[in-house]
Amino acid sequence: MIYLDNASTTLIKPEAVGSAILTAMQTLGNTARGAHGYSIDAASAVYEAREKIARFFNCKRADHVVFTSNVTQALNMTIYGVLSSSDHVISTDLEHNSVLRPLYRLQDERGVEVDFVPADKKGCLDYRDFERMIKPNTKAIVCTHASNLTGNMTDMRRISEISRKNNILLIVDAAQTAGSKKIDMQELGIDILCFTGHKGLMGPQGTGGMCIGEGVKIRPLIVGGTGVQTYSRAQPERLPTLLEAGTLNGHGIAGLSAALDFINETGLDCIENKETFLTERFYNGIKNIDRVTVYGDLSREHTAIVALNIGDLDSGEVADILFEQYDIAVRAGAHCAPRLHRALGTKEQGAVRFSFSYFNSIEEIDKAIFAVKEISRSEMK
Amino acid sequence: MIYLDNASTTLIKPEAVGSAILTAMQTLGNTARGAHGYSIDAASAVYEAREKIARFFNCKRADHVVFTSNVTQALNMTIYGVLSSSDHVISTDLEHNSVLRPLYRLQDERGVEVDFVPADKKGCLDYRDFERMIKPNTKAIVCTHASNLTGNMTDMRRISEISRKNNILLIVDAAQTAGSKKIDMQELGIDILCFTGHKGLMGPQGTGGMCIGEGVKIRPLIVGGTGVQTYSRAQPERLPTLLEAGTLNGHGIAGLSAALDFINETGLDCIENKETFLTERFYNGIKNIDRVTVYGDLSREHTAIVALNIGDLDSGEVADILFEQYDIAVRAGAHCAPRLHRALGTKEQGAVRFSFSYFNSIEEIDKAIFAVKEISRSEMK
Repeated sequence: MIYLDNASTTLIKPEAVGSAILTAMQTLGNTARGAHGYSIDAASAVYEAREKIARFFNCKRADHVVFTSNVTQALNMTIYGVLSSSDHVISTDLEHNSVLRPLYRLQDERGVEVDFVPADKKGCLDYRDFERMIKPNTKAIVCTHASNLTGNMTDMRRISEISRKNNILLIVDAAQTAGSKKIDMQELGIDILCFTGHKGLMGPQGTGGMCIGEGVKIRPLIVGGTGVQTYSRAQPERLPTLLEAGTLNGHGIAGLSAALDFINETGLDCIENKETFLTERFYNGIKNIDRVTVYGDLSREHTAIVALNIGDLDSGEVADILFEQYDIAVRAGAHCAPRLHRALGTKEQGAVRFSFSYFNSIEEIDKAIFAVKEISRSEMK
Repeated sequence: MIYLDNASTTLIKPEAVGSAILTAMQTLGNTARGAHGYSIDAASAVYEAREKIARFFNCKRADHVVFTSNVTQALNMTIYGVLSSSDHVISTDLEHNSVLRPLYRLQDERGVEVDFVPADKKGCLDYRDFERMIKPNTKAIVCTHASNLTGNMTDMRRISEISRKNNILLIVDAAQTAGSKKIDMQELGIDILCFTGHKGLMGPQGTGGMCIGEGVKIRPLIVGGTGVQTYSRAQPERLPTLLEAGTLNGHGIAGLSAALDFINETGLDCIENKETFLTERFYNGIKNIDRVTVYGDLSREHTAIVALNIGDLDSGEVADILFEQYDIAVRAGAHCAPRLHRALGTKEQGAVRFSFSYFNSIEEIDKAIFAVKEISRSEMK
């Protein structure tokens, strides 16, 4: 099968990831639960992973790297942990439901004020809107680093200029960029970076987390055992313990750590270049096909995603044909991005999302182009 | 090394667990994210795991099995999702901080009334207290199935008689019993059973969940993408989607599923019998050693835990000697069980917890007994 659904989860992982998980399962105890060798090994392995993540995203402190089970948990922890009832927050039409639903909930239940920077018909933002929307009580901007539907990246430099100037927290959803694009928290002025482990970072499912800037305060969403300060009624206040109640996914984190090694050894540039090359090849191969509509603006910076429709064929039907007749896995439908589909005018039809990874081959891309051509031709008849 | 810290996490897993994770990593896409083969395979694998868990705990509906990253998350989701500001809840001194801290927080922040059934000096409860504590606004009893410190089990039949009679929800923390003791939700009248995957169930870290009785309402703690009902502002209301925002740990769940197969093939009785045998052997070997104090009441039903102290030696020091001189891993300190340590009078000294698994051997137990004897003897000099 040709797997072109890497924006959902990367299927092909570096070989070292699986072996790291197996080794961890044979050698790691519970992190921070005891002082014997297995437990210390587990704590060291997790701390090493924190350090790698911190270096990778240029987060100043390794102890400000918090592990979660996925980016959704990280975003919920961040959004609920930062915003209070009197606050105003600015977000965008590009967001995934992992950002939208926590924000809607705060709107409905805590009276938090939320404004969304609208996306135009190409799925692009007017960055001046961020500035226009700022109020005296604006606490944070919550923004994706790239749309999971069109692949278009947001201009984080521009957004962070605005957030810095106005002393507003910048919270970034890096679900689609971590591991594929360079993210330097200091350079981009990011206060909280939320990431997932199982997409571009090529780690196992069940991993993700957040990198927290110095001095940023977050109330915990989940509290419980930490192995330290047992007699305190409340969760210990130091990071990462404050936000890591319960047993960590030590096995998964060991896998993520090995994935980071692979990325560092291969070179992020090299990964990005290959993904860009594959994406461009696909885009150039399909953009002039009759009746193919591509969404987003691929002339701007983007990730390894191309979303399209063929005529007025339902996107789910196209995905089914791709899977059944061409053995190609893509993702159709709404992609948990309701506001952007509305902006693109694709609420009814959905879109067919092709998403590529470092491990895809040119041959696979060409087969996918061929398939789109054939489907579009048969559709015209 | 002799690993006797299985109440923290079981170190030795059935071989099939690791291979199931590896296979999952090579074949599973994102569950519920698309309709291609890899994604459908992932959804099927997760659903199969739900069915196994449902059968294992006699939860009536497989779709009422919700996966979380650990039992702490399951308990937080349950406690915050069930209790509202006008409610009263009864819990016990035996609880772990994963129950206590969410309850304290609700007390402090939402004004939920909380009463704790006290433990006596042996760490036992007077079950009449549950009945005595019931008020008109009592919404739930939250109780552990077994203390993670002494290993003593609670009499869930008795507690459920009380909860049923008074129409109160029974929420059970099965962190220490799932996979080691038979748990029949219907027979025990449990409304929400919270479990972890990496202890008795012998699955990987990063797994756990809750089994929810029919008609029990829980508000979600974490909301976000679900792959369905993208255009709904709120999290979809159907279980398990309501409580499973974001990408599941499909790889870990595949491992947990293999672990359940192992337990079913081996027989839960067989596992329980071996664990009981090892625990009794250890207990009988150390109970009459001079200056050894054992906590809890091992004449009652208990799990594979023996907690002790040697004279007035600090528990951490004993654990260090065990590790450094005997290569034995145990857990000292407070075990995230502050109320029970206070009840036992061990707040200062802590306790040395030995906990056994199906994979421990008689030889390991005998070496541990020998070590306790030697330490206690050298301490007397």
